[in-house]
Amino acid sequence: MFFQVVDILGTIAFAISGVLVAMNKRMDAFGVIIIAFVTAVGGGTLRDIMVGVEPVAWMRDITYVYVIVASTTFAVVFRNQLKHLRRSLFLFDTIGIGLYTVLGIETGLVAGLHPLICIALGTMTACFGGVIRDILSNEIPVIFRKEIYATACILGGFTYFLLREFLEDKNYLFVIAGIVVIVLRLLAVKFKISLPSLYKNENENKD
Amino acid sequence: MFFQVVDILGTIAFAISGVLVAMNKRMDAFGVIIIAFVTAVGGGTLRDIMVGVEPVAWMRDITYVYVIVASTTFAVVFRNQLKHLRRSLFLFDTIGIGLYTVLGIETGLVAGLHPLICIALGTMTACFGGVIRDILSNEIPVIFRKEIYATACILGGFTYFLLREFLEDKNYLFVIAGIVVIVLRLLAVKFKISLPSLYKNENENKD
Amino acid sequence: MFFQVVDILGTIAFAISGVLVAMNKRMDAFGVIIIAFVTAVGGGTLRDIMVGVEPVAWMRDITYVYVIVASTTFAVVFRNQLKHLRRSLFLFDTIGIGLYTVLGIETGLVAGLHPLICIALGTMTACFGGVIRDILSNEIPVIFRKEIYATACILGGFTYFLLREFLEDKNYLFVIAGIVVIVLRLLAVKFKISLPSLYKNENENKD
Repeated sequence: MFFQVVDILGTIAFAISGVLVAMNKRMDAFGVIIIAFVTAVGGGTLRDIMVGVEPVAWMRDITYVYVIVASTTFAVVFRNQLKHLRRSLFLFDTIGIGLYTVLGIETGLVAGLHPLICIALGTMTACFGGVIRDILSNEIPVIFRKEIYATACILGGFTYFLLREFLEDKNYLFVIAGIVVIVLRLLAVKFKISLPSLYKNENENKD
Repeated sequence: MFFQVVDILGTIAFAISGVLVAMNKRMDAFGVIIIAFVTAVGGGTLRDIMVGVEPVAWMRDITYVYVIVASTTFAVVFRNQLKHLRRSLFLFDTIGIGLYTVLGIETGLVAGLHPLICIALGTMTACFGGVIRDILSNEIPVIFRKEIYATACILGGFTYFLLREFLEDKNYLFVIAGIVVIVLRLLAVKFKISLPSLYKNENENKD
Repeated sequence: MFFQVVDILGTIAFAISGVLVAMNKRMDAFGVIIIAFVTAVGGGTLRDIMVGVEPVAWMRDITYVYVIVASTTFAVVFRNQLKHLRRSLFLFDTIGIGLYTVLGIETGLVAGLHPLICIALGTMTACFGGVIRDILSNEIPVIFRKEIYATACILGGFTYFLLREFLEDKNYLFVIAGIVVIVLRLLAVKFKISLPSLYKNENENKD
């Protein structure tokens, strides 16, 4: 129940972030809904087709479609008010990546995969919706340039598997891992921490 | 038989549309054939891997490969004459999306999915070959900016499920849904109907 | 054993080529490792999800992850020295595409697919890691513009199926096909052979 509520909040936040990007690119209504859709379900879809859990999650549960359509409609109608909601959106988004990381790890565990692969699946679930959104909008994915949040997902995943040595209860582990992702993300943004760019050569400054 | 002929015509039209885009981008022969290929089979491939019907359609039936190679060769050889064929190409293309929509819905029904998911699969089958073509050519997908034809696919899909309450024969339903897609697309182009852009703000005219 | 060593060398070369592209785009550490990863495993992943072999290869064997992380770390640390290694890297890369072509053909044969589809799978395995790398970096894939190496993979694949009429031993066939790919690629680069661009019209010179 708790998980489902957070899952829905995460889906809403991701869908709305897609709407904002799509409207900035001046896409039509169809483009906006598709971008909202892939941002919200893209990561889970990629996870499911790589692991072989098909039909993929959003095809098995129609709730996703309803939530995404409702969020998109809301975001389009209230697009001028959304800037006042930026803080709440950021919070939803962050809670969403925490949960999506945990959902991805769970999928890997069920398929009997190696812990590192489970962590990769968690990160993929949380982050690749945004990557696909950026590819469809013809941008270098934001995540590759300045985001700490994939790193937060990875560290949350490591926390899960480190604590598994000491804790038996899977649900506790999931809650703790999710919280680690969320707290790291919040701290990273608050203190403007980001990964260093690995420039090939500092003086090659041409684009 | 009828379906198969139209499927082949659709494949031809989609492959040729890929060739035209790839040649405009000055790709080499390999690039041209790959773009022709993904335009023709990309939508169906995405549908099949999401639903879990694998190997995907074009791997199970070698006819697709022959048709696409032949169409590409034809389009490259007669590239200067193709502009006189634009009207026929547009007609093939439109018939193609009508049929592809129906094929996608059918895949969803066979997998026992929700009507809305079936409609999404139909639209995906008809439209995402073009989306992948545009991504590989480093363009914002045309479909997200000014095309009515995804909307035609969606409305055709709804027609299918609405009429299912009254009509028992699946074949009739498929023919009607396909015709709805085709007619809507033709009318949209004839009367220059398109979806409104959802600009975030009219005066943010930068970019 | 021989195959495994070459597979690892190929993975290393592909991962390093990803690192070089990502650093040129000034991505952060996360972007660099992801691009290295998709360059190395992208082609095989696409092959596996289209054929339905899931979880995909790199999820079943953790060696890939270790090799890629080690290669990326190496490439980042020694980024200024890497230019002196260009020749060796090119050789690894070329050996890699030879082996990857063969691995893709084998996957198709195991799934009972048509020879032409097997050749497509071989080419995809060898080349699409680079395609995904370029898409994520927001470039028109290099392979579509001036590369002979996809053509080398295709010709190597045809060699496999032509010789199958005369040779029974699958291992010999694989070695010969791999060598054909490698030799063609080396010759193409040495003699600067490339496929002709298929311009739509020589005097339409606008972009």
